[in-house]
Amino acid sequence: MTRIWNFSAGPAALPEAALSKAQEELLNWHGAGASVMEMSHRGKCFTEVIREAEADLRDLLAIPENYKVLFLQGGATLQFSAIPLNLLAGRSADYMVTGAWSKKAWQEAARIGKVRLAATTEVDGRPSDGFTRFPRADEIAIDPKAAYLHLCTNETIHGVEARDESLLPEGVTLAADMSSHILSRPMEVSRYGIIYAGAQKNVGPSGLTLVIVREDLLGQAEVIPRLLDYRAQAENDSMLNTPATFAIYMAGLVFKWLKKEGGLTRMADLSHEKSARVYEAIEQSEGFYRNPVDKECRSRMNIPFRLANAELEARFVRESEAAGFMGLKGHKSVGGLRASLYNAMPLEGVAALVDFMREFAARQG
Amino acid sequence: MTRIWNFSAGPAALPEAALSKAQEELLNWHGAGASVMEMSHRGKCFTEVIREAEADLRDLLAIPENYKVLFLQGGATLQFSAIPLNLLAGRSADYMVTGAWSKKAWQEAARIGKVRLAATTEVDGRPSDGFTRFPRADEIAIDPKAAYLHLCTNETIHGVEARDESLLPEGVTLAADMSSHILSRPMEVSRYGIIYAGAQKNVGPSGLTLVIVREDLLGQAEVIPRLLDYRAQAENDSMLNTPATFAIYMAGLVFKWLKKEGGLTRMADLSHEKSARVYEAIEQSEGFYRNPVDKECRSRMNIPFRLANAELEARFVRESEAAGFMGLKGHKSVGGLRASLYNAMPLEGVAALVDFMREFAARQG
Repeated sequence: MTRIWNFSAGPAALPEAALSKAQEELLNWHGAGASVMEMSHRGKCFTEVIREAEADLRDLLAIPENYKVLFLQGGATLQFSAIPLNLLAGRSADYMVTGAWSKKAWQEAARIGKVRLAATTEVDGRPSDGFTRFPRADEIAIDPKAAYLHLCTNETIHGVEARDESLLPEGVTLAADMSSHILSRPMEVSRYGIIYAGAQKNVGPSGLTLVIVREDLLGQAEVIPRLLDYRAQAENDSMLNTPATFAIYMAGLVFKWLKKEGGLTRMADLSHEKSARVYEAIEQSEGFYRNPVDKECRSRMNIPFRLANAELEARFVRESEAAGFMGLKGHKSVGGLRASLYNAMPLEGVAALVDFMREFAARQG
Repeated sequence: MTRIWNFSAGPAALPEAALSKAQEELLNWHGAGASVMEMSHRGKCFTEVIREAEADLRDLLAIPENYKVLFLQGGATLQFSAIPLNLLAGRSADYMVTGAWSKKAWQEAARIGKVRLAATTEVDGRPSDGFTRFPRADEIAIDPKAAYLHLCTNETIHGVEARDESLLPEGVTLAADMSSHILSRPMEVSRYGIIYAGAQKNVGPSGLTLVIVREDLLGQAEVIPRLLDYRAQAENDSMLNTPATFAIYMAGLVFKWLKKEGGLTRMADLSHEKSARVYEAIEQSEGFYRNPVDKECRSRMNIPFRLANAELEARFVRESEAAGFMGLKGHKSVGGLRASLYNAMPLEGVAALVDFMREFAARQG
């Protein structure tokens, strides 16, 4: 069987060990005589699956006891609505806009309630010219009465990451979209009121959304769709209705793989190493490849890069696909190319990409 | 490999052929070198998956062209909120309450907007005493100005089915929860304004929700969470954000299996035959097994039944599990036992269940 080097931004590569395990037990989970996707979500077998997944996730992220872990549906996008619906309670919220995703979150919240723009790195509404860095502390104007400050700690499209958690604003409840770098390094969960992430990048298949929320934030929702109410979900162990059982099972396999591989400290080292190699290839190309992001804000997960023109970029995509790579085309909103280096991407794949990049540049040069 | 006879109400048994196909290509879909769950939802491969799934579903249900097919998340429960949010537009809606699920839908809608109870078969608010039949036409009081009339055409917990579509109310937009009997027989889609179904019974894994909605109903939503807006989802081909790709793929495999097996006419024959055998075993037990539902409203999909006492019911569950059956315990809200006979349950499994029921009764008799 030939597996490809998959640099997709999401849905993205999953650890081959987790996929193989799922394949092995797809028709018969642990001798139960049925697939995990055929089992009642309230039965003994699946209860074991979801409890272990939660316990392993709590271990990996060192989640404090006063945080609830919810396994929900609808992706980060449904959380763009759920967060203001749950947390505003008649107040206003602050948003930091640092890329396409935090901008979407802000726009959705503005439809639902009162929001303030606490900071933006967009330049003149032209996303292609801005979104190249995280704002400095002195650029963030926080409303001390805000229900929360929303931020996206890694912008998948623009490749901007809040690398140093200690620089994040203090004295305000942080609501963080971590979809594209959760589990890529240890995070200090207690710095946040709520952390959320669509699964389809570093966690498991799409259709699952992780929400990690501090207990004292629950129960502020006014009348909202019941399925979006964090308190109702927490009181029902994420089973207000049937959850995405197979996706939770796959995420559980990924969590076990992460623990076996050395946990998030090891993932942090690896993603530092992997991204450094790609950025180095970009820097050493003498302008053949260009990444516009400020060096200290460059994402370890998503590396967008441009070539001299669209024709050359299209050739890069074509030839990379022929050479056994997948998912290197940039997001349609910004164009260009992008390499996503989630946990499941081994160093070997990154080395192959860097070789290809050098060889491609040499051929065109 | 030993597969068990799985009578779970949902998540429920899936066709073994679909599971085997998924197993075969789990790490490498059609030679692409990646799992279908690792692929961009906007890429060529997954576009093929979702287009085929929609085309096959349209074939199976003969869905008219003026209906949109949406592949959403959140289960039927999120639709309990989405339907009033999309369709009320300041008006009132009518609800028929015929079991636990339609009651939940009504209660959720009542939190969101103005609703009327058009009919109920509940007796004195004691669900265990009522919910044994579908209301007669002369018991349904329809408000001609209602935005829609909501009904659940098969009540999974109470085992009540609207068997004859021609008896459904006319002259009003029907909004139907078909979660537990969709694809079990041909349906006249044009009788409904909107049909919806959680996938985890007759379609595929949990985490996917089918919504089939008439185009003229789109675009009435006021400001609601954007992901719940049918028009926005329809305009974006169910890809306002990343959909539950693996669940859509599995549903697609189930649709292909259904077509190969003879389509919904064949499924209608089979489910008639399968359910008749179980009801016959209940009738012939001389009161050892009891099903309270009016004969003409008995569900072909979900057959709840009681024994003389809870102790005997617990023994039935224990011994059935030891004998290789799964999922026969009734829903916690009503107790007793329940056999769910979705499309994936072969006649052979039903024959084995009926043998077990007769043998169990004889041993206790």
